[in-house]
Amino acid sequence: MDHAKMQAAVQAYFDLFNAADAEGITNLYSDDAMVQDPYGTPAKNGKDEIRAFYSMAVKSGSHLVQEGPTRIAGNRAAFAFTVHVGGLTQESKAVDMDLPMGKMQIDVIDTFEFNDDGKVTAMTAYWDPSVNLRKL
Amino acid sequence: MDHAKMQAAVQAYFDLFNAADAEGITNLYSDDAMVQDPYGTPAKNGKDEIRAFYSMAVKSGSHLVQEGPTRIAGNRAAFAFTVHVGGLTQESKAVDMDLPMGKMQIDVIDTFEFNDDGKVTAMTAYWDPSVNLRKL
Repeated sequence: MDHAKMQAAVQAYFDLFNAADAEGITNLYSDDAMVQDPYGTPAKNGKDEIRAFYSMAVKSGSHLVQEGPTRIAGNRAAFAFTVHVGGLTQESKAVDMDLPMGKMQIDVIDTFEFNDDGKVTAMTAYWDPSVNLRKL
Repeated sequence: MDHAKMQAAVQAYFDLFNAADAEGITNLYSDDAMVQDPYGTPAKNGKDEIRAFYSMAVKSGSHLVQEGPTRIAGNRAAFAFTVHVGGLTQESKAVDMDLPMGKMQIDVIDTFEFNDDGKVTAMTAYWDPSVNLRKL
């Protein structure tokens, strides 16, 4: 797996999420992909469950901001970011939705595992609402 | 596994590494622990191999600086940091060793998996020398 392609897939993930393009995100994954977000919760298996997960996620009015460069190792990538909920560029949307929790930030690290076709076969997210969520 | 204990273990990892205390780092691990640094290279299995790995690593005169908060998920922690080689607080040591590569920085993300005793059973490091290493 080419380093540049893995880095481009991570960049696409941020761009697509911030464009609320759940279908585009889903197409980054392989048909048999597994998403654990966060790790320790039941996995989403396959594109239908993954599409449903991201369709819900992008409706939250969240905006992702990467922190530091994407790390590459073998066929995996790891990257740190902050989820801005109900603020930043999508404030009006968040207000329209009348989010019950108000503005908050969540610190997350994700890992992607890639197959030879450049599709993500496994995503694991690391964050805990009691540790990594800050209400603003 | 208690969140605070996992966060404390990550902090201890940084403190012990920056004190060049390879034995202290080794004691953070369980007897049957596995270290993959970076992911995709042969694993170090068990405390003897792990001790040998960190004994070598701390001799490099490296200093670790965490970037952003430790992320917690289930029995795992993930954290981003930069390795400063041949610079920062240990400059004189690095110069003494006449490092062939000079000063450099490496961007890394590590994950720890913990057992019920609070020991790290698996460490996976994400970085690639062709992508995440910057010569200064």
